[in-house]
Amino acid sequence: MSDSELAAERIGGFVRRTPVIEVRPGMFFKLEYLQHAGSFKARGAFNRVLSARAAGELPASGLIAASGGNHGLAVAHVAKTLGVRAEIFVPEVTSPVKVAGLRALGAVVNQAGAVYFDALAASRERAAETGALEVHAYDHPDVLAGQGTLGLELLDQIPGLDTVLVAVGGAGLIGGIAAALHGKASVVAVEPELIPALNHALAAGRPVDVSVSGVGADALGATRVGSLALEILISQGPVRSVLVSDEAIVAARLALWREHRIAVEYAGAAAQAAMISGAYRPEPGERVAVVLCGANTDPATLAA
Amino acid sequence: MSDSELAAERIGGFVRRTPVIEVRPGMFFKLEYLQHAGSFKARGAFNRVLSARAAGELPASGLIAASGGNHGLAVAHVAKTLGVRAEIFVPEVTSPVKVAGLRALGAVVNQAGAVYFDALAASRERAAETGALEVHAYDHPDVLAGQGTLGLELLDQIPGLDTVLVAVGGAGLIGGIAAALHGKASVVAVEPELIPALNHALAAGRPVDVSVSGVGADALGATRVGSLALEILISQGPVRSVLVSDEAIVAARLALWREHRIAVEYAGAAAQAAMISGAYRPEPGERVAVVLCGANTDPATLAA
Repeated sequence: MSDSELAAERIGGFVRRTPVIEVRPGMFFKLEYLQHAGSFKARGAFNRVLSARAAGELPASGLIAASGGNHGLAVAHVAKTLGVRAEIFVPEVTSPVKVAGLRALGAVVNQAGAVYFDALAASRERAAETGALEVHAYDHPDVLAGQGTLGLELLDQIPGLDTVLVAVGGAGLIGGIAAALHGKASVVAVEPELIPALNHALAAGRPVDVSVSGVGADALGATRVGSLALEILISQGPVRSVLVSDEAIVAARLALWREHRIAVEYAGAAAQAAMISGAYRPEPGERVAVVLCGANTDPATLAA
Repeated sequence: MSDSELAAERIGGFVRRTPVIEVRPGMFFKLEYLQHAGSFKARGAFNRVLSARAAGELPASGLIAASGGNHGLAVAHVAKTLGVRAEIFVPEVTSPVKVAGLRALGAVVNQAGAVYFDALAASRERAAETGALEVHAYDHPDVLAGQGTLGLELLDQIPGLDTVLVAVGGAGLIGGIAAALHGKASVVAVEPELIPALNHALAAGRPVDVSVSGVGADALGATRVGSLALEILISQGPVRSVLVSDEAIVAARLALWREHRIAVEYAGAAAQAAMISGAYRPEPGERVAVVLCGANTDPATLAA
């Protein structure tokens, strides 16, 4: 059994199997924004924490995590579900709607630093004091295996699946999906032009630092990708990596609302932006899934 | 073959098969707000117009309809898809987002009267002048059969389905679903307390006029239910009819966004309001589908 298959067994009672819709022949949306806590992050977070609990490694001080927001919401949801404490570090770029959501879930919230990596550093100092279980947002095998369960669902939901378009921040989702799909379908990495962390890492053959800005900064704002995910992606042969402008992300997000009544956050629309902008052009007959991965957003920003 | 089965064949290439999610064991949401033009209305409108076209009864002057908004959007979408003209009459209670949507689809829009029935009267005067094909919002056999296709999908998507909760305006959706489900599952009619048109009609044994107000008025604002739908419902034995307060509808709509990232309009949340408020309490083991039927809404009204 693969890591993702084990994860699927472990988290099956805790996460939602999110639906797929065929929006035109051969073109599918995975509605992963319907996941608990509003993004795919619940998969990896549950798998990480349930694994630790099974191993007797869940301390009384609970969970600690750094996050642009979505992972923190997932960890707070996991903590609430399992009846443990959660302390979440977020950067200043995190949207107010995510901070409010964290508080509503009962987490202790600390805003620390400008971007995710600053919050990560602060969370590690704090973890050393409290002994809480660190739930990394992407660079941990259990987190990758949890995200990979989304790939298993796609294989089950879309017969003949060829390609999955995935928005990339720290690369936990794409790394997990790539491992789960290995040999059966391939992934396309989609990043904002303003945060090309995987694109540059693939060119360099190792994680490299990039600057972080733009509309995707709170959800795709990892300064560099995780080394575990990069290893998976490189080992699987040439990874297709495309970049999209912030304008394309904004346009894709509005189109998802206007044409489908799907409200997602900017990062949640990034993969679809690659389709709309032509940054990725499927071959005739190619069966493509676009992962709509998060909706922790202020709906007012979708108003006409 | 039943009317709904014929309709399903006719409109299959034009409407979306919308997904179902199981939100807890035995409790399902039908995500019909993902339908073309943002509500179930596309089903009935396509069936009515494609039937007429097949019979050579589609005039050069195109389509005419009266609507609180959703049916008009569906008719405008049908017209655009089939390359014909559409003229839509809406009352003043119709939300600005729906009026803007109608114009964006290229329909001629007339605002006439306070509530739907006023717009209906105006549309009939105009139809007598232009000869356009009237696409009634609910009281036509082809419209009912089209809405019934949603019921057929539910039977296919939910093994062992017992009960479907449906928001009621003119009763086209519930009438169509009840006919499609006949003998296999039952329906529960959910209406706002402020617009109890079916509730009163069932008590009287015939359509009766009620006043129209509240948050559901633009989508559930039929002064009286359609006689065809009422006939179906009465012929199928006792119909369960429940009423929900506007407060319950508002709360259900917010909860759908906060817990599921599903953005619907007030009417689209009415059926779920019956669950949340306890107006409908399923038996242990009962398998219940809640139809989330429309999302033509201003997302700003969902902001925290």
